[in-house]
Amino acid sequence: MRVLILGGDGYLGWPTALRFSDRGHEVSVVDNFSRRRWVAGAGSDSLTPILDLDARIAAWREISGEQIRSFVGAVEDGEFLDRVVAETGPEVVVHYGQQASAPYSMGSREQAVETQYANVIGNLNLLFAIRDHVPECHLVKLGTMGEYGQPNIDIEEGYIRIEHKGRSDTLPFPKLPASLYHCSKVHDSTNIHFACRTWGLRATDLNQGVVYGIETEETARDERLITRFDYDELFGTVLNRFCLQAVIGHPLTVYGSGGQTRGFLNIRDTLNCVELAATNPAGAGEFRVFNQFTEQFSVIDLAHLVKLSAEHLGYTVEIQHCDNPRVEKEEHYYNAIHTKLLDLGLEPTLLGEELVESMIHAIERYKDKAIEAAIDPRTRWNPAGGAKTPAGQA
Amino acid sequence: MRVLILGGDGYLGWPTALRFSDRGHEVSVVDNFSRRRWVAGAGSDSLTPILDLDARIAAWREISGEQIRSFVGAVEDGEFLDRVVAETGPEVVVHYGQQASAPYSMGSREQAVETQYANVIGNLNLLFAIRDHVPECHLVKLGTMGEYGQPNIDIEEGYIRIEHKGRSDTLPFPKLPASLYHCSKVHDSTNIHFACRTWGLRATDLNQGVVYGIETEETARDERLITRFDYDELFGTVLNRFCLQAVIGHPLTVYGSGGQTRGFLNIRDTLNCVELAATNPAGAGEFRVFNQFTEQFSVIDLAHLVKLSAEHLGYTVEIQHCDNPRVEKEEHYYNAIHTKLLDLGLEPTLLGEELVESMIHAIERYKDKAIEAAIDPRTRWNPAGGAKTPAGQA
Repeated sequence: MRVLILGGDGYLGWPTALRFSDRGHEVSVVDNFSRRRWVAGAGSDSLTPILDLDARIAAWREISGEQIRSFVGAVEDGEFLDRVVAETGPEVVVHYGQQASAPYSMGSREQAVETQYANVIGNLNLLFAIRDHVPECHLVKLGTMGEYGQPNIDIEEGYIRIEHKGRSDTLPFPKLPASLYHCSKVHDSTNIHFACRTWGLRATDLNQGVVYGIETEETARDERLITRFDYDELFGTVLNRFCLQAVIGHPLTVYGSGGQTRGFLNIRDTLNCVELAATNPAGAGEFRVFNQFTEQFSVIDLAHLVKLSAEHLGYTVEIQHCDNPRVEKEEHYYNAIHTKLLDLGLEPTLLGEELVESMIHAIERYKDKAIEAAIDPRTRWNPAGGAKTPAGQA
Repeated sequence: MRVLILGGDGYLGWPTALRFSDRGHEVSVVDNFSRRRWVAGAGSDSLTPILDLDARIAAWREISGEQIRSFVGAVEDGEFLDRVVAETGPEVVVHYGQQASAPYSMGSREQAVETQYANVIGNLNLLFAIRDHVPECHLVKLGTMGEYGQPNIDIEEGYIRIEHKGRSDTLPFPKLPASLYHCSKVHDSTNIHFACRTWGLRATDLNQGVVYGIETEETARDERLITRFDYDELFGTVLNRFCLQAVIGHPLTVYGSGGQTRGFLNIRDTLNCVELAATNPAGAGEFRVFNQFTEQFSVIDLAHLVKLSAEHLGYTVEIQHCDNPRVEKEEHYYNAIHTKLLDLGLEPTLLGEELVESMIHAIERYKDKAIEAAIDPRTRWNPAGGAKTPAGQA
């Protein structure tokens, strides 16, 4: 298959490129390195020593014999993206090429606008490029479980059957996005759904949970293939951050009570899910939504798991509850359905002490690079303060 | 009240400015005249002879003794909008300042991007300006009934109570927007709802039906106060277009069978609704949604009503079914609830022969200005052809 990966230099994009390339597919990647710039701008850096894109691609070629093509540019540049899609003629596009930090999107008007512009316009450019050059191509778009927010009913996979006043319809599942970043992903879903209904495009939206982990099968083959690992307040996801904190002796920072429950998955399962979606494409006109996570945890449960695992390795770990910088419910109902990827054959990598210990060992190799000042939260969802639980909605 | 009207030079924005000014409120308007440019770019022009903004404001001052302040600039310019909001300190912002044509948004990638950029980023800039300068201000945002699309259940006002697997919640009503313009309005609603939940802002989303009519109480006082009247394929709404077609002897162009049913309202009721919303503000943290229309009609019913009315005035009128350029259901269930504005005291102006005849008389004065070549539809929702009804969604 010809596979085009947008954001192919990122935490997930790069290992995904290796995965498809390793399977013998013809892989092209697009990136403009904005993730590297955003993290640097936040005074942080990938914990892992990542090569630049050309050098990683050369290392991969040396190790695997496979070639990955690269295109440097922004998805917001419609002419550029149109040209790349026309030239590479993809059968699958995997779209990771977005600003993916919720706190970054909440930092200022400028950052909110940058996030929604990059994500919404980039995705819109992609829909037109697919329509105009490769209308049969399958778009695999990374969404997020954070689009749904915290409804008081079970979260279904993209759609819900509603019975109302004696009639019924299956409609998009209502969304309560948790940040302006998450709003941008809801906008993308709305646009993609429209493009499928109107132009007959085929798309799969992978509403992903919180990803953790460092290594994949392919990146583990050589240190030059390692992917980035962020732990700062903007781009570090919670479990990755806890593991780093345990190693460097920083308290595990739990926002509020830690009762917030979310879906999680291992980076290896992200790759498995994307591969399953790509090899089982959506039909023409179909907008398919998969909830992509393997297990639900509360934040405080994860903190305890990391504390326990690290203590077994000899670390002393403190859990610190800090004032929640976000506006979110800390005690809430949460049950999200996630059977569609299991039905396609996903075999989950489950989280346990052993897995946390292996992450800790991987982090230990680079712990001297950690920039402790970048960890603690500074971005407040509501700078004016006030209520930390969402206001009434109706 | 201090009232700030974004898009205050437009079809609805200008009469709204006059209405609030006439009621003794302190009115400021913002516009960058993009609507004038878009219509000119489409080879058309307002049928009514509209003055430029400074001249209309001067005429209004002469007639009423009231002053309207104007600010020329784009809502997409965050610095500009921030400064205007800080300087005018509004208690109400009425936001009409958007690209409002569905066909325009479907014309090309560039036009789609322009639409979503102008609408989403402009609205996002406004939310930040309100948060930072006038957090108690009430945002009255113009949405559209086209956000809902054509679900097979009754359309509620913004929210729906969902019972699901033994639990229940009141959640945003699922949306099936009808064009990339309509998608942009769904994005706005998502962002505003988030801002209300997170920052405690107060907002009313007026999901408006299709507006018809030329005159309002205030614009009728002097020809220099007249508002614009568009009838071209991009910016002309259906009933306005039918009336113009009847007068100039052009067949009434019905897209497809004409079974498409929508909510409609008179321009005078738009003003009444906006005034009712503004004088009955939403609470802090509340995102209120009103479905703003007074009657439902199918397109073919409107064509017959215009034909009948015009024939009584001596015109010969032909109804012509043309290939539907849109992707939409032509025969469908449609029942949209619209009681909240009635509960606030709206007294609808109902459509009938008399009202159509008065529109025809108003149009007759300017019929020699009509540009017939601009009327017929050229923009196709799906240029590749294929299905004219939406593809399956689940």
